[in-house]
Amino acid sequence: MLYDILRSIGQLYDEPMAEAKKRLDSLLKPTGSLGVLEEIICRIAGIRGEVYPSIDKKTVIILCSDNGVVEEGVTSCPKEVTTCLTSSLFRGLATVNAFTRHAGADITVVDIGLDSDLDCEGLICRKIRKGTCNIAKGPAMTRDEAIRAIETGIGIVKDLKNKGYNMLGTGEVGIGNTTTSSAVSSVLTGSPAEEMVGRGAGLSDEGLMKKIETVKKAIEINKPNPDDPIDVLSKLGGFDIAGLTGCFIGAAAYRIPILIDGFISSCAALLAVRMEPKVRAYVFSSHGSAEPGSRRVMKELGLEPMLSLGMRVGEGTGTALAFNLIDAAFEAYTKMGTYADASIEKYMTSSN
Amino acid sequence: MLYDILRSIGQLYDEPMAEAKKRLDSLLKPTGSLGVLEEIICRIAGIRGEVYPSIDKKTVIILCSDNGVVEEGVTSCPKEVTTCLTSSLFRGLATVNAFTRHAGADITVVDIGLDSDLDCEGLICRKIRKGTCNIAKGPAMTRDEAIRAIETGIGIVKDLKNKGYNMLGTGEVGIGNTTTSSAVSSVLTGSPAEEMVGRGAGLSDEGLMKKIETVKKAIEINKPNPDDPIDVLSKLGGFDIAGLTGCFIGAAAYRIPILIDGFISSCAALLAVRMEPKVRAYVFSSHGSAEPGSRRVMKELGLEPMLSLGMRVGEGTGTALAFNLIDAAFEAYTKMGTYADASIEKYMTSSN
Repeated sequence: MLYDILRSIGQLYDEPMAEAKKRLDSLLKPTGSLGVLEEIICRIAGIRGEVYPSIDKKTVIILCSDNGVVEEGVTSCPKEVTTCLTSSLFRGLATVNAFTRHAGADITVVDIGLDSDLDCEGLICRKIRKGTCNIAKGPAMTRDEAIRAIETGIGIVKDLKNKGYNMLGTGEVGIGNTTTSSAVSSVLTGSPAEEMVGRGAGLSDEGLMKKIETVKKAIEINKPNPDDPIDVLSKLGGFDIAGLTGCFIGAAAYRIPILIDGFISSCAALLAVRMEPKVRAYVFSSHGSAEPGSRRVMKELGLEPMLSLGMRVGEGTGTALAFNLIDAAFEAYTKMGTYADASIEKYMTSSN
Repeated sequence: MLYDILRSIGQLYDEPMAEAKKRLDSLLKPTGSLGVLEEIICRIAGIRGEVYPSIDKKTVIILCSDNGVVEEGVTSCPKEVTTCLTSSLFRGLATVNAFTRHAGADITVVDIGLDSDLDCEGLICRKIRKGTCNIAKGPAMTRDEAIRAIETGIGIVKDLKNKGYNMLGTGEVGIGNTTTSSAVSSVLTGSPAEEMVGRGAGLSDEGLMKKIETVKKAIEINKPNPDDPIDVLSKLGGFDIAGLTGCFIGAAAYRIPILIDGFISSCAALLAVRMEPKVRAYVFSSHGSAEPGSRRVMKELGLEPMLSLGMRVGEGTGTALAFNLIDAAFEAYTKMGTYADASIEKYMTSSN
């Protein structure tokens, strides 16, 4: 199924993109002066195949899972917090609850590998297994599990498409997932662990050193093939990263714009793009995470974050904030006046 | 009046700031993980003297005026466009109309020096004079006019305060005002004109060279005293910059948070801070303008833009987008759950 889906991913539609660009250039503003918002509008038109696509139903997909590597002491809190935080999403207590409420967006919370039997109304259970194995001692999961987790992500996007969602954010809850992301991105980008590892939710200096050593050890022991994204993912990743990889692939296959949140989802986006480069055109940035590896991965993806807030919450919080920006851009795109409306000649030319 | 107002500006209130920090640290997220949004919340609490200040009535102040320097051929469009664009604000055609509508904010449009007799319902007439003189040939305005324009800005903020506004953005419409801003900021920061001058709404290479030469000539002819902000402003600025300088001073005096938009309003903020350093604590960034001088001025102010979109529209568009971010931050700050609500112990410590 995965390979069929990957093969089905197409290019953006040229004509609606060109029409969108024409509309933008007719608006009462210097040509190109909305910056990246103009590129976003054009790409969304190209994804959806409509000059004026509606983006009125949004959700942040939050994949929740546990990571065996936590037993190495690389996190500032115990693994039980993954389940606590997941359940708090259903009580409206988390940052992403506030940000999505403000943005008029929903959340879609999925248990893809919690090491618990959490049962909340609305929690989508797609558990691959109760947490991954410790990457410092061996592979996180089997290759088959990785593929199943990716396919799970694709299936979630398919369901959301059927429910009418037309804009997606990506998020995660998973203690230990900046460690797995550091390992995955270190291999994918060929950057040393020292440059990819950060303090996560708040590690001490000592904790940071241990985290770097753990990432190095995980790479050394598992010897992933950097040219085989599924090998890297299954050996060093987590079920959240694998599921999000599937979300990016699914969004491209089902033609829905999808936003990267922070470090973890950027790694998933990079894995998806490595599996099928055409995915890249369907992916949008949101904020620049405070995690050091995030910048390196975004650069590899050729994306610049829209928001520079130094946030490191996770949960998809950056995507919820970015929804607002895209909404504002579409408000301008669809409702602003043109040079003709203002009865003045076009006075501002492109600076490029 | 100006000097009394400057003397009246106080410090932020410590106690509500400390209380706000305490509240933020109690919320269900890693300590400090909302990044600059946390600093913004604390500062707004300190400005307003309340732990939970309401920020429910916002407006973007748009100062409109003409600049004599346009006759040097430093712009990509004729000066008549200033009046056209100002009138389009009242027909809802401009980008800032769309962005403020999306943010639930108003616009406050002021004629502080249009070279026309524009009469629109709602346009606030505070004309100092019909456009400034050409800075390439002599001072833009007299020192007295500069002070009157600053006091005009202070008065506008006072009126808005009385109408219940509790959050302000700054914007402008004025063909030629990236030239005046380049001249002002070049002197204030001691940076060469080449580093401060950009293409504005869309200059050609040739136009860019002429603009740089014009800025150099203006500085050479006027010989402003860099240590006297009003001297720099009156010789090289515009009525929009002067009025905005007053808005920043007024916001500090009347204790209302105020956001910088792009290059022009950043220069006004820097002028205000040079006149009274305590103003700095009341000023917030929004986006990083595509104009090269903008980054230099923001650095001088010690501010990092929240948004990185490569926009160069002006009109206060960046502040309208930033309103959304601050609203989302307050939604989290006031309505998120705490560690106690989630019945878990505080598990994430500060990384600092």
